[in-house]
Amino acid sequence: MSDGEIEISYRLRCPEAGLAARAEALLLEQTVELPRSALRTAFVRGHIVGRIVSLGPAGEGEHRLVVAQPAATSAMDPAQLLNVVFGNSSLQPDVELEDLRVPPALARAIGGPRFGSAGLRALAGAEGRALTASAIKPMGLSAGEAGRLCRTLARAGIDFVKDDHGLADHAFCPFEDRVRACLAATLEAAETTGRRAVYVPNLVGTPSTVLRQAALARDLGVRAVMVSPMLLGLPFLAELAATLGLPILAHPSFGGAQRIQPAALLGRLFPLYGADAVIFPNSGGRFSYGPAVCSAIAEALRRPAAPLLPALPVPAGGIRAENAAEVLRVYGADAMLLVGGSLLEAADEAALLGRCRGFVEAVRAVAC
Amino acid sequence: MSDGEIEISYRLRCPEAGLAARAEALLLEQTVELPRSALRTAFVRGHIVGRIVSLGPAGEGEHRLVVAQPAATSAMDPAQLLNVVFGNSSLQPDVELEDLRVPPALARAIGGPRFGSAGLRALAGAEGRALTASAIKPMGLSAGEAGRLCRTLARAGIDFVKDDHGLADHAFCPFEDRVRACLAATLEAAETTGRRAVYVPNLVGTPSTVLRQAALARDLGVRAVMVSPMLLGLPFLAELAATLGLPILAHPSFGGAQRIQPAALLGRLFPLYGADAVIFPNSGGRFSYGPAVCSAIAEALRRPAAPLLPALPVPAGGIRAENAAEVLRVYGADAMLLVGGSLLEAADEAALLGRCRGFVEAVRAVAC
Repeated sequence: MSDGEIEISYRLRCPEAGLAARAEALLLEQTVELPRSALRTAFVRGHIVGRIVSLGPAGEGEHRLVVAQPAATSAMDPAQLLNVVFGNSSLQPDVELEDLRVPPALARAIGGPRFGSAGLRALAGAEGRALTASAIKPMGLSAGEAGRLCRTLARAGIDFVKDDHGLADHAFCPFEDRVRACLAATLEAAETTGRRAVYVPNLVGTPSTVLRQAALARDLGVRAVMVSPMLLGLPFLAELAATLGLPILAHPSFGGAQRIQPAALLGRLFPLYGADAVIFPNSGGRFSYGPAVCSAIAEALRRPAAPLLPALPVPAGGIRAENAAEVLRVYGADAMLLVGGSLLEAADEAALLGRCRGFVEAVRAVAC
Repeated sequence: MSDGEIEISYRLRCPEAGLAARAEALLLEQTVELPRSALRTAFVRGHIVGRIVSLGPAGEGEHRLVVAQPAATSAMDPAQLLNVVFGNSSLQPDVELEDLRVPPALARAIGGPRFGSAGLRALAGAEGRALTASAIKPMGLSAGEAGRLCRTLARAGIDFVKDDHGLADHAFCPFEDRVRACLAATLEAAETTGRRAVYVPNLVGTPSTVLRQAALARDLGVRAVMVSPMLLGLPFLAELAATLGLPILAHPSFGGAQRIQPAALLGRLFPLYGADAVIFPNSGGRFSYGPAVCSAIAEALRRPAAPLLPALPVPAGGIRAENAAEVLRVYGADAMLLVGGSLLEAADEAALLGRCRGFVEAVRAVAC
């Protein structure tokens, strides 16, 4: 890959016969959107049109096409980069985005994780083991109820207590009230545990709403936030990460049904656009990813191309507290385990505290 | 549909046997994300959990599930509404979003088209016929070259001359220079034609970049803009439409591969979030939509539920100038025909002008 090129890998489902023409059409669709014969300017032909790096078989009726597009086509802009990578081609049902690599200068321009795994681990003050996380839910709890649940989870020793991604600035649980209640709860719990859990509020809304929530959260003492990049727009994640000054957990809401391989969307694009940790549906839960996909996501997050910092994999979605050790055998210590519903099924607060402590101890017991 | 409910229609691919349980799980996944047995608060059970409106067959192995979610779950917020409609369920491969209806108060809160079809038609000063549009491309033209192309298209009498969606603030064609050149070009062409074409610049970038571009464009005299809502984020479209004061054309870039039916995404969500006109791939072109899908998109745009204004369908993507009359037989006069590449294949400027005039005359000749 030349330093001035974006390398993009697609899977194509098309007959062998028309393959070369299909690859050429895809290459051109993403930038000039015209056939080569209609390109009348030398600059366009020489500096805008990319090149085919390789084209070969990739299993039953599928082909892997790797193209290199000039980095300048991205205008070094987060939204325009997506346009070049998978803008119009997302409308063509025979194409799937498989992977991408951007040159270091472009990666720096988009931004990448500002804190990464190491920053999150430092926040938790935990070494040599996986981190633990749980969720405040269901939607419909009042701010006071959210705070009490947060206190119980924090008292059990869970490292990160995050809002469910569906908690917004609802009339029945206003954002500011919830953040105040949950921060107070982690402080109160720390008197017992000697260690303060990190409360992670969910920011959701239009950009101006989210920026207001972010400023308020920071002022109140929040140390990390969560957003759903596919709801808010990946370019806005890049803008938020550039100014926020706090680690960002990214949630996959509204992002699953794209014809983009999960390892490319969650493992490459989310951290490139600024996520420090990425929540993804673990295999075997109520979502659709298999073990190989989950491993590929974790691997992509942990080993980004320079100059990006490693980001933290956060398997979630139907993990049961009892299975924590089993999940850790897959991911090892360089992960955050997010267990929500399985803990919240407890019949009352005492049972919840017990289940959460069991989860925390199971994670600590696994030497990594 | 109760006035306080969002009605959402999904297609489910699952065996008849587990259908009722699958529907219940989907209903709960979108708000409380917990099984009913774990809901311990009367308010949550009574005011947050939605209801199943209907569940019935929808063709080979498929079922149509219609649910009603309390409007309050959306927090009247553009991003949170998407969360409730298709957040986590987008991660489940057996679900497709088919349609949605929001109550009037929520539609007003999100915003809808501010100008709609009527506003765009008034801009063009054209009645009783379809509107015409073409595109400035390929990426790589200088601002001066873009201006000259714009002048030719405008001299031919084309109503709307838009940037290609891939034209960003590139070093080789800066946004401000391009906008100035194209506006000057439409003014110059108007001296010949007696009618000024509407130049539509493409706004692309993070929210702050796009807001800067929008303000600059307005200051320079731009009368309509284009954005790609799935690149920028639908919630940002809502925010932009609320303050822009100009009609917005929406481009489908990065939006095709969602597991959302095109009529729901382009026909319902784009206008709800503020698009006045929606560009979509016409059937028979180089994209994938069939005639029924295209008709459903056009119908949804033209006949929104109150209080939304009708928005303008803009079929595009491989329409040839020669086929304009044929395409108009499908869409009638209440549409804007966007023809790009087929015009730009002309060998030189004189040929381009001739082709464009042919296109304009073909559209005017069709009495609607």
